[in-house]
Amino acid sequence: MSSESQRIVLAARPVGEPKATDFRLESGPLPTPGEGQVLLRTIWLSLDPYMRGRMSEGPSYAAPVEIGGVMEGGTVAEVIASNSDKFSKGDIVLAHSGWQTHAVVDARGLRKIDPALAPISTAVGVLGMPGMTAYTGLLEIGKPQPGETVVVAAASGAVGSAVGQIARIKGARAIGIAGGADKCRYVTEELGFDACLDHRDPDLAAKLKEACPKGIDVYFENVGGKVWDAVLPRLNPFARVPVCGLIADYNALTGDAPGPNRAPALMRAVLVKRLTLRGFIVRDFAALHGDFLRDMSQWVREGKIKYREFVTEGLASAPEAFIGLLKGKNFGKQLVRIGPDKV
Amino acid sequence: MSSESQRIVLAARPVGEPKATDFRLESGPLPTPGEGQVLLRTIWLSLDPYMRGRMSEGPSYAAPVEIGGVMEGGTVAEVIASNSDKFSKGDIVLAHSGWQTHAVVDARGLRKIDPALAPISTAVGVLGMPGMTAYTGLLEIGKPQPGETVVVAAASGAVGSAVGQIARIKGARAIGIAGGADKCRYVTEELGFDACLDHRDPDLAAKLKEACPKGIDVYFENVGGKVWDAVLPRLNPFARVPVCGLIADYNALTGDAPGPNRAPALMRAVLVKRLTLRGFIVRDFAALHGDFLRDMSQWVREGKIKYREFVTEGLASAPEAFIGLLKGKNFGKQLVRIGPDKV
Repeated sequence: MSSESQRIVLAARPVGEPKATDFRLESGPLPTPGEGQVLLRTIWLSLDPYMRGRMSEGPSYAAPVEIGGVMEGGTVAEVIASNSDKFSKGDIVLAHSGWQTHAVVDARGLRKIDPALAPISTAVGVLGMPGMTAYTGLLEIGKPQPGETVVVAAASGAVGSAVGQIARIKGARAIGIAGGADKCRYVTEELGFDACLDHRDPDLAAKLKEACPKGIDVYFENVGGKVWDAVLPRLNPFARVPVCGLIADYNALTGDAPGPNRAPALMRAVLVKRLTLRGFIVRDFAALHGDFLRDMSQWVREGKIKYREFVTEGLASAPEAFIGLLKGKNFGKQLVRIGPDKV
Repeated sequence: MSSESQRIVLAARPVGEPKATDFRLESGPLPTPGEGQVLLRTIWLSLDPYMRGRMSEGPSYAAPVEIGGVMEGGTVAEVIASNSDKFSKGDIVLAHSGWQTHAVVDARGLRKIDPALAPISTAVGVLGMPGMTAYTGLLEIGKPQPGETVVVAAASGAVGSAVGQIARIKGARAIGIAGGADKCRYVTEELGFDACLDHRDPDLAAKLKEACPKGIDVYFENVGGKVWDAVLPRLNPFARVPVCGLIADYNALTGDAPGPNRAPALMRAVLVKRLTLRGFIVRDFAALHGDFLRDMSQWVREGKIKYREFVTEGLASAPEAFIGLLKGKNFGKQLVRIGPDKV
């Protein structure tokens, strides 16, 4: 057991795109768990777009990470010392212990993972927060009906890939949008989407029209920007738009966007097409966690839901991996391997 | 019985604000009802903001009025000749027979009104489409809870006045926005809203903050424009926004709005505050008509819902009255008296 812990802290609030110097690697002695606490050794760190929001001040659904504070993040970890009767040394747990090799946390915030059921990394992927985001947003807000058309961007990513595959399980058509031919091929050939368009295609709007001859009934919004502009005119009356993320806009939030002002046209579309736009975060649907685990693990076992992981090695790789994630450089669920499964 | 019929047709599609020359008064012989039809004599014509949409081409939930066609509109009328076994001469009916003194219509589209229950003009007002718009949009989408804060603009108008009063019946606080001190006084003193703000006040945003110390949980959107800009920052997490109309924007829809582009900030608010924005028109909730009539007529009888009518005299006054409606010159439900109750 190493006697040193490493962590990545937020060194500065990014202006626009985060850069390497907005982060700092620090080290220190291993902390000691107090009463009711455990000491964790991180195995997997999940990187997710929402983390960009935690780096900025301003109103959000969660407080920002403080300057000098450890970056937040979901993790899969091993209990290496326990002062709680709920967990034993050697247990594998789902935690939210952030960008660090070790952490002392309250046992109450942890959930035990059974390594026999599925690879433990899926607890922060298809069977974790991204999978549940897809499941709840699509089914509770999007409500796709058989024969309807569902569009989702970042379609090779952790959330988007699940959205499209669940849409197909429910009998809807799934149209993905992704960055580049390789990802698009994966989305159609491996994941079984009905079509996938490259968001870099200058003809995106026309291609989208062609791929959705009956219009769009559900648009799972996780990117914003130009994709949303292309989707809006194609939405059908009574279309539903679960708003889960706006990755394309995250870096631009510090300033006003240049005109023309599209907000009146957006509100007019909401009125005239009787659209439903609803923002959500996964914990709004915490009551559905049991349903999610039951359905999703079954679909994964049956091969109806496939997933792909994109792994970088070592804690020090996390900042560059995160910067790449915001640019779509990942191909699949972005993970950082912090430590081996067993030491 | 007069042997001549008069009607107002759309002479030209308005660019921006409609003007008198966009309309034309025409006359002709009284039409004769065919099989299953009745001849109507119009008593009341309802003028409503949605009519602006019918004057323009472009995607909407209904086809536009054709150039040279009779302007659409809800009416209360007397059957003066009947070729239908469902209606007799002398019956008072709710129709959608437009801006004209007489009309031949299919009996199937009519609903009989009992003049003993309420003044017949209420069939196009508080007990008609505007009242049902308020009832369904507020209760089905807004879902106000006791102690929550509901904001509605055009608060002295047909829809807004009902929204605020129903909100109070449901135990919520009602904050109105209206044009000028007289209307605001009426909204608080007569209708019982908790507060009413003047939308012309340059300090609207600050006044709104003061009037809604616990934020806004439901914003019933019927105006758009600056009111929406002032409301958006004050919306609470999980706020609901039934989108029923955008009267402030109706005249501007022919062009792009000047920047900055507020759409990304709007989508970010939807995400971060987990807002629900949902457009609707009253016929989406047709199944609730029985509930509406039962509740609303009881509330009117009990004095819990008050209403005010703003009447102009004669078919020829309709264009100016409609132009005034879009500018907020009406004070209460805008009606045109086309003919006497009895001839």
